Amino acid sequence: MTSTVGQVIRCRAAVAWEAGKPLVMEEVEVAPPQANEVRVKILFTSLCHTDVYFWEAKGQNPLFPRIYGHEAGGIVESVGEGVTDLKPGDHVLPVFTGECKECAHCKSEESNMCDLLRINTDRGVMLNDGKSRFSINGKPIYHFVGTSTFSEYTVIHVGCLAKINPLAPLDKVCVLSCGISTGLGATLNVAKPAKGSTVAVFGLGAVGLAAAEGARIAGASRIIGVDLNSNRFEEAKKFGATEFVNPKDYNKPVQEVIAEMTNGGVDRSVECTGNIDAMISAFECVHDGWGVAVLVGVPHKDAVFKTHPMNLLNERTLKGTFFGNYKPRSDLPSVVEKYMSKVQ
Amino acid sequence: MTSTVGQVIRCRAAVAWEAGKPLVMEEVEVAPPQANEVRVKILFTSLCHTDVYFWEAKGQNPLFPRIYGHEAGGIVESVGEGVTDLKPGDHVLPVFTGECKECAHCKSEESNMCDLLRINTDRGVMLNDGKSRFSINGKPIYHFVGTSTFSEYTVIHVGCLAKINPLAPLDKVCVLSCGISTGLGATLNVAKPAKGSTVAVFGLGAVGLAAAEGARIAGASRIIGVDLNSNRFEEAKKFGATEFVNPKDYNKPVQEVIAEMTNGGVDRSVECTGNIDAMISAFECVHDGWGVAVLVGVPHKDAVFKTHPMNLLNERTLKGTFFGNYKPRSDLPSVVEKYMSKVQ
Repeated sequence: MTSTVGQVIRCRAAVAWEAGKPLVMEEVEVAPPQANEVRVKILFTSLCHTDVYFWEAKGQNPLFPRIYGHEAGGIVESVGEGVTDLKPGDHVLPVFTGECKECAHCKSEESNMCDLLRINTDRGVMLNDGKSRFSINGKPIYHFVGTSTFSEYTVIHVGCLAKINPLAPLDKVCVLSCGISTGLGATLNVAKPAKGSTVAVFGLGAVGLAAAEGARIAGASRIIGVDLNSNRFEEAKKFGATEFVNPKDYNKPVQEVIAEMTNGGVDRSVECTGNIDAMISAFECVHDGWGVAVLVGVPHKDAVFKTHPMNLLNERTLKGTFFGNYKPRSDLPSVVEKYMSKVQ
Repeated sequence: MTSTVGQVIRCRAAVAWEAGKPLVMEEVEVAPPQANEVRVKILFTSLCHTDVYFWEAKGQNPLFPRIYGHEAGGIVESVGEGVTDLKPGDHVLPVFTGECKECAHCKSEESNMCDLLRINTDRGVMLNDGKSRFSINGKPIYHFVGTSTFSEYTVIHVGCLAKINPLAPLDKVCVLSCGISTGLGATLNVAKPAKGSTVAVFGLGAVGLAAAEGARIAGASRIIGVDLNSNRFEEAKKFGATEFVNPKDYNKPVQEVIAEMTNGGVDRSVECTGNIDAMISAFECVHDGWGVAVLVGVPHKDAVFKTHPMNLLNERTLKGTFFGNYKPRSDLPSVVEKYMSKVQ
């Protein structure tokens, strides 16, 4: 492994040359890591809808050519100047948002929205010098959310890498670097349902299933899965969902259906679709007096959340979360341990 | 005092015969209390804007003739069957919302929105028999929010009476039965600012001043008062406000002004106007990552709260409160003690 340290590495990467056009496998050059950067050999990467969303680039600033990918697992190949937390051979999960450990957010117990390394979908270069570490014949290829894991090697800021248990199977735990932690943390860290409480989960994709799993771990007595696709209900039972509502089956708003099922509303709801109507329903379906709704899904840029303020004044709480409120470096290793303690 | 027990009491009351027409001092008959009711001699009563709002009856169901008034202090004259918590001579604060101590809300540590005795502005009669205890020549005069304190004697459900320290001066502590506790509790019980934190208070009327006082008690380092009327600023200093913003003095939204003053936003905000634009500003002026906005003011019935959901997803929290989350019977006596410990 030492033979590549300080050298440009030539490897294969899936490059997006244009918005919405198929990725092309190319040989790319990956420059060595600079100060506070780490070069990582990516062993596994999965595809998240966010990659697709920015590859389609409908409504965002298009930035091409670019290497997407941010849900992954790999091994440190080499580290740049000033990196002391990681060394070659360490197992890591790249994360699309970071933790500098110095800013007000990193020092706050409540926030994980690091001032320096917070997700930035517009930036395609490294912070250190404002340049890309990827190139093809000298022409730069842009990074994506600081990770660009659709490449055999990539360069990442040390603050966007979680060092994990080397015994953890990277092919499995790679998905903990985005969607699963987002859903799990939304329930465990933000909604915090009490044992025996009722929880509604809107959207039963990967994030929603992880949110349901969080409710199961917390000891919720009823976990109501809400999805427009009833085919997802059977699978959701494995993640703790106990009941299901398909809004298409009713002639009234789903919040009313849920209120009737639960004597006035659920104790907690977690919205994992990003659809603005689902967000409003998720808020309005929680019980007055103590209900808490947590928004997870990323909405359309023109979406507007609307509700009558009396829904708030009747002592409901509305919160949003980002990456399940996990701090990537401080908290993600323990999420991996949670998985390990279950499978061993 | 015993001579009136079980008898109809004739006394003076300010009766509203029609919406928006001056109240008329009348001699009314006040029937004895029935089961779970208490007849109270009102010694002091103040005027709250909510009285005016329902007297104007623009938009609500008009219910006349009616006796308004709900911010008051008095002494128990007699009690009805089943009342064991109070006896003649006890000093009490009537409250427009109650605490049955039996329902899910009363049993919840978080809620004060009692199922049985929650504020009901449409009901003008007692729960026990669906009738009024007030009459003039046999014609019933309706109650208002279960208190009707604009009368020398009134009948109130035992669950809407806080028994307080008899040494407390009723002419002073009567205002703790509504607005002051609402503002104070919004900050102390719901916003819960940490010591050294920044707090914005929207609206510097009685409720807002009490909210600022709550921030001062909590040890906030900066308390920013926001009001369209700059004449209120001097008085607000006595309640802890350290800085002031009059939105009229700026050409940009007040949330932007506050964000600039506080390096990204305040830690907590408390909205005490009921104006929907102020509510939105109060939410959007809190810091991402950890900011909490608390809505207190009662909005117009057609008001719609609107915001971009990203404001939530960036880890802001929006909550509403009712009567400062105080449970009337359980918590109000300690608010009176707080006042007493300060003046003695």
